[in-house]
Amino acid sequence: MISKQELKFIKSLHSKKHRTEAGLFLVEGEKSLAEVLQSSWEVKMVLATTEFLHHYIDSKNKSKTKIFEADTELLRKTGSLSSNDAGLAVVRIPDTDNYYEPANRLVLAVENIRDPGNLGTLLRIADWYGIKELLLSKESADIFNPKVIQSSMGSFLRVKVFYCDLKETFRKKKIPLFGTFTAGDNIYNASLPSRGYILLGNESQGISNELSALVDRRLSIPKFGKAESLNVAVAAAVVLDNFKRK
Amino acid sequence: MISKQELKFIKSLHSKKHRTEAGLFLVEGEKSLAEVLQSSWEVKMVLATTEFLHHYIDSKNKSKTKIFEADTELLRKTGSLSSNDAGLAVVRIPDTDNYYEPANRLVLAVENIRDPGNLGTLLRIADWYGIKELLLSKESADIFNPKVIQSSMGSFLRVKVFYCDLKETFRKKKIPLFGTFTAGDNIYNASLPSRGYILLGNESQGISNELSALVDRRLSIPKFGKAESLNVAVAAAVVLDNFKRK
Repeated sequence: MISKQELKFIKSLHSKKHRTEAGLFLVEGEKSLAEVLQSSWEVKMVLATTEFLHHYIDSKNKSKTKIFEADTELLRKTGSLSSNDAGLAVVRIPDTDNYYEPANRLVLAVENIRDPGNLGTLLRIADWYGIKELLLSKESADIFNPKVIQSSMGSFLRVKVFYCDLKETFRKKKIPLFGTFTAGDNIYNASLPSRGYILLGNESQGISNELSALVDRRLSIPKFGKAESLNVAVAAAVVLDNFKRK
Repeated sequence: MISKQELKFIKSLHSKKHRTEAGLFLVEGEKSLAEVLQSSWEVKMVLATTEFLHHYIDSKNKSKTKIFEADTELLRKTGSLSSNDAGLAVVRIPDTDNYYEPANRLVLAVENIRDPGNLGTLLRIADWYGIKELLLSKESADIFNPKVIQSSMGSFLRVKVFYCDLKETFRKKKIPLFGTFTAGDNIYNASLPSRGYILLGNESQGISNELSALVDRRLSIPKFGKAESLNVAVAAAVVLDNFKRK
């Protein structure tokens, strides 16, 4: 049986400070958990229902991962979800020097995204559209926040996130920088290449003046009704769909 | 000063049961609040910061609405937001016979949407794309849930929501029914008219067999990467963008 100390440790991973200290984060819910178990990421511990363990844990996993059975009540108390009928895992944050090697394809960038749910949804969208790199300004939400991991539905395993100085990165760019603005060229008529940075602003302020100055082409999603704006993740999906459909 | 009893009453509106009994719901946050005050909806009470009241309340409002000053701490305790530096309003749920008069334009329909945040985002997207009606199956989330109102960013005022028996509605349809599926016609190449129902399934199960049988044309959003699916609101945005871009 899992000890009280171990449960306390798992709970501590809800906070960024403890995740950074331990170099570990939480993965919760059936889909994400199943995906991380099949990946090459190091899973230190699994706490899951009998049913989940029966379906997803094979002997290969058993040798390297601490495994505990838990009921849904213990999962709810220990994890961050209001209900969890599968399980949770403690996973090692991959070693990375966080150096972004400029890519010659479509790269998504967001300035100052704050909401973990939006960031997770953004990862899922990037993954759907085959985007491999997401650049975030340094003050953005933490990619290993349980809400990000949960709403990414496993896509955190496939989209590499870099926290970087976007200004520095774009100054040295060799591919064009597209920015989304309220007043820009209609994205339906624009010529959209297969390489370039696609930059979105944050939920309330849009793209800063500092970064706007570096944008090569301003794009807008046409509006047919009266909403003032689209959520940042939704805007990313529509923009990527327009880039990729060509 | 507002009484304890009135504060207790406001808090009771977090629950659907009490909203239905009282015929009232909560609107929170600066943007939504500003919009509802400018609308023709009946605002019974406003609880807001001095600054908000100074900016948004004119003498016209004062005559028909109970107005109280509140600090951010009282707003946080009374409302559903983790932080609120503007205010909240108690608003009358509009009288409606919930009868959907079949429209001869694009109408959005979702089967069994459960997550209030997704539903609010969906309203905002529908509003962006000029959709006037959203049909929801009866077991869907409540449109007057504070989280729906909050994430709709004021769009609940413009998109009319009908809870209806989707099967009955589609049986009597005079415009085509488009459904989104994993395996359907590529939406980029499909001929998409300016009238029809666009049906999306819920977050985890997609469209039921019962409703699938009534679909005239199955559409798919092309996938370029590895995410299993898109969130229902995100999928709605991409589909609407494809319908409207023609």
